[in-house]
Amino acid sequence: MNVYGNRITRLIEEFTKLPGIGGKSAQRLAFYIINQPLAKAEALSDAILDAKRNVVHCSVCCSLTDSDPCVICSNESRNRHVIMVVEDPRDLAAYERTNNFKGLYHVLHGALSPMNGVGPNDLKLKELLGRIDKDGAQELIIATNPNVEGEATAMYIRNLIKPLGVKVTRIAHGVPVGGDLEYVDEVTLSRALEGRRDM
Amino acid sequence: MNVYGNRITRLIEEFTKLPGIGGKSAQRLAFYIINQPLAKAEALSDAILDAKRNVVHCSVCCSLTDSDPCVICSNESRNRHVIMVVEDPRDLAAYERTNNFKGLYHVLHGALSPMNGVGPNDLKLKELLGRIDKDGAQELIIATNPNVEGEATAMYIRNLIKPLGVKVTRIAHGVPVGGDLEYVDEVTLSRALEGRRDM
Repeated sequence: MNVYGNRITRLIEEFTKLPGIGGKSAQRLAFYIINQPLAKAEALSDAILDAKRNVVHCSVCCSLTDSDPCVICSNESRNRHVIMVVEDPRDLAAYERTNNFKGLYHVLHGALSPMNGVGPNDLKLKELLGRIDKDGAQELIIATNPNVEGEATAMYIRNLIKPLGVKVTRIAHGVPVGGDLEYVDEVTLSRALEGRRDM
Repeated sequence: MNVYGNRITRLIEEFTKLPGIGGKSAQRLAFYIINQPLAKAEALSDAILDAKRNVVHCSVCCSLTDSDPCVICSNESRNRHVIMVVEDPRDLAAYERTNNFKGLYHVLHGALSPMNGVGPNDLKLKELLGRIDKDGAQELIIATNPNVEGEATAMYIRNLIKPLGVKVTRIAHGVPVGGDLEYVDEVTLSRALEGRRDM
């Protein structure tokens, strides 16, 4: 049934294709856009095309960027000898928000997942090896996600890089700050115990 | 902080302006689009502009449409003497999905809400009066939302239209089908009792 006419229906369908947008949300977005001034619809439409056409992978860290190398890799004040390996540009952004890491990043664009057909060649590992050779990296901090795929990827990278004589570290597992011990799972509690530090 | 570069940040900001899309969702949408083939981004971008540029209010029922009059108003098999008044095109679509109403619609584009500065002149009431004169309407079914604004609007329209000798009805209030009496609020239960019918 097509009570709205083809154009509105097509817009609703396009929104429905986006992740996390169901039928009702897509309808709401479509009507919102139709009720906005033309300039606002043009701004959104243009931002979509502009980003899609001009965003590339940084040739150094493989993160997404519109200037190559990206703002982080081209920042001379960052420590070029420490590289943090993350799965996704959003993880990079999360660590940047901490304002607590001044090294460089390397974005894998995924994690090893044989079940989903993601093997080592699907990740940016060749690029990582190339950097380590070229940049004289001293420490590789592995900050993949703390789940099965992330841990397997961390182990794989460790075995790959350690023989090159580079220090390889993994971000700590433990109880999240602000959390409530009662609600923390057993594995995390055990890891927090193992990783205890003098105080 | 702008770790993604201007283009991605701009796209994220444009998405954040949409209703119901927060920062995290906007980021997810932006990365999704960047990882899609160009053709898909173009399809979305084009659907936005196309809908915004070509969708108009139907000159008869004031619903949104890309062909004027809309598919419902130009359908000769519909009963032109019964008009259902709704607040929004989505309410029209909801009733169309029932497949149970064969008259025409009139879309007000809102409901009276003095608190939010919405008065009678902000609704499509002049257009409604014009249609009743011209089309020989026999019954006006008021299907505004069952909340304070919707009820006030229903009452306002009733007082406006009834003196013209047109039958004015309101959709029934009662317990929703499939609901559980225990969870239905007192006002609805009272209305369901008042509106009881012989069986």
